[in-house]
Amino acid sequence: MMKLMPCLKIVSTNLRFTMRSHSYFDSLGSARIMAQILDGKALAKEIKDELKIKINNWVTLGNKTPTLRCIIVGDDPASHTYVRNKIQAAKDVGISAETMKYNSTLIQEDLLKIIDGLNKDKEVDGILVQLPLPGDMDERKICNAVAPEKDVDGFHIINVGQLCLDMPTIVPATALAVIEMLKRFKIDTFGRNAVVVGRSKNVGMPIAMMLHSDMRHDSGLGMDATVTICHRYTPAEQLEKLCRNADIVITATGIPKLIKANMIKPGATVIDVGITRIVDEQGNTKLVGDVDFDEVSKIAGNITPVPGGVGPMTVAMLMHNTFQAAQKLREAEIEN
Amino acid sequence: MMKLMPCLKIVSTNLRFTMRSHSYFDSLGSARIMAQILDGKALAKEIKDELKIKINNWVTLGNKTPTLRCIIVGDDPASHTYVRNKIQAAKDVGISAETMKYNSTLIQEDLLKIIDGLNKDKEVDGILVQLPLPGDMDERKICNAVAPEKDVDGFHIINVGQLCLDMPTIVPATALAVIEMLKRFKIDTFGRNAVVVGRSKNVGMPIAMMLHSDMRHDSGLGMDATVTICHRYTPAEQLEKLCRNADIVITATGIPKLIKANMIKPGATVIDVGITRIVDEQGNTKLVGDVDFDEVSKIAGNITPVPGGVGPMTVAMLMHNTFQAAQKLREAEIEN
Repeated sequence: MMKLMPCLKIVSTNLRFTMRSHSYFDSLGSARIMAQILDGKALAKEIKDELKIKINNWVTLGNKTPTLRCIIVGDDPASHTYVRNKIQAAKDVGISAETMKYNSTLIQEDLLKIIDGLNKDKEVDGILVQLPLPGDMDERKICNAVAPEKDVDGFHIINVGQLCLDMPTIVPATALAVIEMLKRFKIDTFGRNAVVVGRSKNVGMPIAMMLHSDMRHDSGLGMDATVTICHRYTPAEQLEKLCRNADIVITATGIPKLIKANMIKPGATVIDVGITRIVDEQGNTKLVGDVDFDEVSKIAGNITPVPGGVGPMTVAMLMHNTFQAAQKLREAEIEN
Repeated sequence: MMKLMPCLKIVSTNLRFTMRSHSYFDSLGSARIMAQILDGKALAKEIKDELKIKINNWVTLGNKTPTLRCIIVGDDPASHTYVRNKIQAAKDVGISAETMKYNSTLIQEDLLKIIDGLNKDKEVDGILVQLPLPGDMDERKICNAVAPEKDVDGFHIINVGQLCLDMPTIVPATALAVIEMLKRFKIDTFGRNAVVVGRSKNVGMPIAMMLHSDMRHDSGLGMDATVTICHRYTPAEQLEKLCRNADIVITATGIPKLIKANMIKPGATVIDVGITRIVDEQGNTKLVGDVDFDEVSKIAGNITPVPGGVGPMTVAMLMHNTFQAAQKLREAEIEN
């Protein structure tokens, strides 16, 4: 019997009208579906290229350059890497961005004062406080201290309230990245079954909120799917059953290989938000998602890779949020 | 063959430790389960009796009487009935309540001024604006005009944001009524499958939010269930399949007999939030829920009736919200 390798096609949206999933028959005659890989890296580049043009036009029209401030407290290396990536992306698209670094000795009261200064600074459009914050800082209080209209992370309680009421708002970048991928890759969600695995307030919850909401509402973010929210207390056999009944599975748990091939309906779309750093058998460090990619990609219709899936899209959507904030602030300025 | 009538037991929580569902065998030997009826009317009375004692103690300790103002605009008869019921319940528990009636000619700007006056009035603890509002009023703007700490309907965007972030908040009364019924009737939700049918922002959405959330969080409202949100675009066969896999089905659609016996897992709990006024074959007007009660009650383990289920509980939870608001306002007053 001839051994066939799964045939994975990397596509970006530029190719989406020509690319389709193929099936072929192995020597026993059973049809196999090869997943289309939803290339987040390529899509993120497309979105950043679009943004670059839009921002350039915006500035050419006489508006000030959109401006982002990233606050980072302490010396967590992963957080510093994330912030560097964001600053680089901002520069790539024409957003003026600066990191404001503080020692972990910074006290909450002083951080609140710094944020207040940025809130009042008319030059600044977007404020991002990199989480997690060290020690005993109250992250919720910090998130709520950022002016909602400059809150490019979408973590402020008013932005969360707006999202949950289907109102126009700033959406947390990772959640928006998932929705944008579904839209740009033209994954049908209307009346489809979607399962969201993970109920975090920054990722799982807002994704579930947009996925189940009405498309006709003001936010333009509704997807009209039937949505099931699974989490750590969902029994394994129910997780399997619910996922197998889903047209779309979105997972954001940080548990490697949680989602296996037997849990996926043939042809379903699998979006992997998980990112975990593991050491493989050869002693090499690598990033993996929640999905057993090698096996699931033989069953799924569409699948995001890790790395190169939702991760780069998150950074692109943060830039989208920053430009959106700049535009809204300018509109408000003109109105007053 | 002897014809057996379904044996329905009306229980309130006072009886919950002694009452159990019974099964019996019909003449063909097949087991039948008779649903326990979750008597919302009796439970609402218990809760109001508890509240009456608490409020009496509160006032005896020297605090002012909790005070509620219900604003009603226009002459919709159903709205006037609802408001009368709320005022009566308030009086029953020792809350000082008044209706403020306005003609439908009232303009939005004047309504905003009235609300602002109540926000500033230290005598007033709870403000309720009966919906729907007539004509071209912006209900979202009106809901957001009520001070969040006096918003006993839980419709203010900050209260919605707090709910969705598992923070202590004021929860919309109908949604809270459903959660309170599950708790008081000791329906197990941890790791269970729940289906919420209907995605309204005042009922379905907040119920789904509490049901899927973490029990350990500050709000104390999390239920740790796996939750599926179904709605008008969920295909009928998927609605049936998902409901049949659920331990708990909560429906809030206003579509009579949407939920039929073949959609319910034997022994499941069915909570019916729907209330529709229909005219029966004899020409009599009656209230019905979303559930085909006569048939479903032969299959379900627990079921709420309509009327007498969630409806009376909603009014009781509104009183709970009003007393909670009064207590929080007093705490804040002492702190300042």
